[in-house]
Amino acid sequence: MPQQISQISGALATRLNAVIIGDDALSIDNFTTPEFATFSSMVWADSPVNLATSLNSPAAAILTTPMLANSVVTDKTLLLTDNLPQALFNAATAFHWQPEYAPTIHPTAIVDATAALGKGIHIGPGVTIGAHCILGDHLAILAGTRVGNGCAIGSNTILHANVSVYDHVTIGANCVLHSGCVIGAEGFGYVPTPKGLAPVPHLGTVIIGDYVDVGANSCIDRAKLGATIIGSGTKIDNLVHIGHNVNIGRSCIIVAQAGLAGTVTVGDGVMIAGQAGIADHVTIGSGARVAAQAGVIGDVMAGDTVSGYPARPHRVKMRELGAITSLPAALKRLKHLETLVQQLQQKRNHDE
Amino acid sequence: MPQQISQISGALATRLNAVIIGDDALSIDNFTTPEFATFSSMVWADSPVNLATSLNSPAAAILTTPMLANSVVTDKTLLLTDNLPQALFNAATAFHWQPEYAPTIHPTAIVDATAALGKGIHIGPGVTIGAHCILGDHLAILAGTRVGNGCAIGSNTILHANVSVYDHVTIGANCVLHSGCVIGAEGFGYVPTPKGLAPVPHLGTVIIGDYVDVGANSCIDRAKLGATIIGSGTKIDNLVHIGHNVNIGRSCIIVAQAGLAGTVTVGDGVMIAGQAGIADHVTIGSGARVAAQAGVIGDVMAGDTVSGYPARPHRVKMRELGAITSLPAALKRLKHLETLVQQLQQKRNHDE
Amino acid sequence: MPQQISQISGALATRLNAVIIGDDALSIDNFTTPEFATFSSMVWADSPVNLATSLNSPAAAILTTPMLANSVVTDKTLLLTDNLPQALFNAATAFHWQPEYAPTIHPTAIVDATAALGKGIHIGPGVTIGAHCILGDHLAILAGTRVGNGCAIGSNTILHANVSVYDHVTIGANCVLHSGCVIGAEGFGYVPTPKGLAPVPHLGTVIIGDYVDVGANSCIDRAKLGATIIGSGTKIDNLVHIGHNVNIGRSCIIVAQAGLAGTVTVGDGVMIAGQAGIADHVTIGSGARVAAQAGVIGDVMAGDTVSGYPARPHRVKMRELGAITSLPAALKRLKHLETLVQQLQQKRNHDE
Repeated sequence: MPQQISQISGALATRLNAVIIGDDALSIDNFTTPEFATFSSMVWADSPVNLATSLNSPAAAILTTPMLANSVVTDKTLLLTDNLPQALFNAATAFHWQPEYAPTIHPTAIVDATAALGKGIHIGPGVTIGAHCILGDHLAILAGTRVGNGCAIGSNTILHANVSVYDHVTIGANCVLHSGCVIGAEGFGYVPTPKGLAPVPHLGTVIIGDYVDVGANSCIDRAKLGATIIGSGTKIDNLVHIGHNVNIGRSCIIVAQAGLAGTVTVGDGVMIAGQAGIADHVTIGSGARVAAQAGVIGDVMAGDTVSGYPARPHRVKMRELGAITSLPAALKRLKHLETLVQQLQQKRNHDE
Repeated sequence: MPQQISQISGALATRLNAVIIGDDALSIDNFTTPEFATFSSMVWADSPVNLATSLNSPAAAILTTPMLANSVVTDKTLLLTDNLPQALFNAATAFHWQPEYAPTIHPTAIVDATAALGKGIHIGPGVTIGAHCILGDHLAILAGTRVGNGCAIGSNTILHANVSVYDHVTIGANCVLHSGCVIGAEGFGYVPTPKGLAPVPHLGTVIIGDYVDVGANSCIDRAKLGATIIGSGTKIDNLVHIGHNVNIGRSCIIVAQAGLAGTVTVGDGVMIAGQAGIADHVTIGSGARVAAQAGVIGDVMAGDTVSGYPARPHRVKMRELGAITSLPAALKRLKHLETLVQQLQQKRNHDE
Repeated sequence: MPQQISQISGALATRLNAVIIGDDALSIDNFTTPEFATFSSMVWADSPVNLATSLNSPAAAILTTPMLANSVVTDKTLLLTDNLPQALFNAATAFHWQPEYAPTIHPTAIVDATAALGKGIHIGPGVTIGAHCILGDHLAILAGTRVGNGCAIGSNTILHANVSVYDHVTIGANCVLHSGCVIGAEGFGYVPTPKGLAPVPHLGTVIIGDYVDVGANSCIDRAKLGATIIGSGTKIDNLVHIGHNVNIGRSCIIVAQAGLAGTVTVGDGVMIAGQAGIADHVTIGSGARVAAQAGVIGDVMAGDTVSGYPARPHRVKMRELGAITSLPAALKRLKHLETLVQQLQQKRNHDE
């Protein structure tokens, strides 16, 4: 298990805005789940079942709510809060041990002589940095990552191992690019010619703002003209595809395996769930939400929630899904009704 | 074509539990398809069409069934079995030539002095191994693969080229990790704050059992607390996403481009087909089957087969799909019925 | 921004088959979008809105149509053409500056002594080339790319950084393989045994034709027997999965995140859109089109367009989608009709 920062139970309770019942001088070595707990661990519980599991674990302390802990008798130390989600976040932050990247350039790294390097930079084994790159202070580029020519990368940004950044890409400060992601490959565009499909030249690039995270093995293609843009604060999960000339606003969340085709425009604060696909040239308004696996082929208004294929307002889609559920029975009712009406007609005809 | 291990036709027939008709002293150099066959190849056929193609190829021998070969007149040697699938597997195993990884550490590899190395280890060019790693016997880590600090990797495991393993990950024995896969990146979790989306610290790790295969460019994220767990014998295809705190049982099959969101629990022997998505916190019971492209948003009972979005029992879904197929016609019938009923009403009103 | 090749406005207009209005001796440094334009840029516009934006930008020249420019009064130089898409392609080609890969082998590259190297080859830092490889003239293999043993790669082909090519793979001439793609990993096939899932040995390989592009982080698995084949001129986007023994024809387009399961056969000139999935052993005829997110579980005839899951002819699917839209209302109409018929029956019964 990764190293954590030990906490004293009383001070931790204060930090978590929690009431402590039991020993306030406990040294807690780590915050974990019951199955990995030791006698110096803290665990947490948000249900009676989880609390029972926690009580049966070796853990010294349990973070939970006053209501759940109400009738509990235990030797373990309890930290109680009504705002468990916030306390979980704060506890994780307290115990979190950040590896420090030493300010060194590994002798096996190949850094072009024309690159401008900021202060306190960490460059790992086998990294390559192209000509005329500008690298900010205190950034870390881990083993095997490739940065092309003419790239700019902001301060405190981390490029994990085996990342590939093509030429002339700009990446902001305080970003995290996970292993295997590829930034700036030529977009996918071809024109039919008598000699086959000819690639459209890509003259543009990729510009990534500050505080952007890019997940493992995600791909962001360069623009045909201008730039593919990822706004500051936007978070991209693993295996996401961002096509050429996409323009994404600030503080968006794009979940794993989603795909945005070329020239998609996304506002601020948009949530695109896993495996969703957005067709080319579509605009998604700020604050909109796209459900998992949705296939969006038309514009989405700001604030709307869409789902399904083709994606439409979620409440409409849910009504349709409900209707489909009752469809097999409805078809039988229709058949029955046809028989009844036929009988009525026959009787009527008989009358006439 | 890759090298294969030559076989003598008679001994091969014995190994495949097949009846041989023709030359039992043939030296067969390789087992291939008709289009790549030479005069020293064996091919196979499971249909009259494939048998005709095989007979027209240069191949010296054909593996097929007695029924298909019944009326065939040929100079080629025939190996006949009623259990063709088993014979195919056995033949592939017989001809399969495994590359041996020499027990050497390439001089360009960067292995931390604190790493504990087992016997007969192969470490390729440019590989990096972090501090305090524990590597089992006879494992192979190919060119450009990155292993972080504090990782444990079991005996006989193969990490192909350009794999990225983050710090403190545990990988069992006899595993195969294909190129480009990423193990242990921080999971995707953020909390909104006044200053934007703050990442949830990930204190946990990834634990992979024995005999696990991970496909090319697949991603397995580390846990927030505790561990993301992949049970022994589970096989993961290419471009699969496994989110933080996912817990997968033994001997599961997860096909290409499937995605499991955070905290999904999967039992033993589960089959998740290609491009399927499982929403966070869902539990999939042992032996269940999730169809391709299914979107699972609720728990799946052990042994059930589900499909569609939202995923439901496959037979229900199939009935719905059938109903939808007849829906355009049903709407016309409904319209017609409305006309008939209106006519009946008018006549009735006229009577009254 | 990436470097571009400067153009003189008059000569450029001739090359684009455009009428020039304004200065035909302008030196235009780059072709870009209004937001990135400088006083020496050319931009383009295909709508009144875009034209207004272009006119408000610092750009010196605008490429647009005679109709859009009809009533415009401007100091900027205008290049006018009725075939804007063709002119855009030609303009991008004119300005496009191709980086040249110097004919050098980086001293940190590990090239096996038995590899046969063509003329003018570029091999970047940390690249590994296995035994008995045959590399064509003027190809470029960028930093950190791994080429296994016994591979053949044709002339002028580019392998971008961090590509992984397994043993015995054949890649044609004039191909582009983007970063992170993985060619030749073992396919995904297992047989159940009493001791768990046993992998099916993969004796085959991958053969890629000429002028094939493979997108970033895409995966093409090797065959069980024979070869997985990608026909010449076929273009594959990012994060695509191509299973073992797939056989793809010439000049196909396979868009991002599509997945082809094992032994799929695809004709020539097929278009498979983003996130579509093709089930194993399916055949797709030449010229067919598979819509985005479609799930193809049966053969598709040449020239057909299919969509949805399970994929069926697009016009049938569209009719179904329309029918589903009207389904909630139809169910109400059905309910109403049942009431009416019941009333008619009651009256009728009363009569009798």
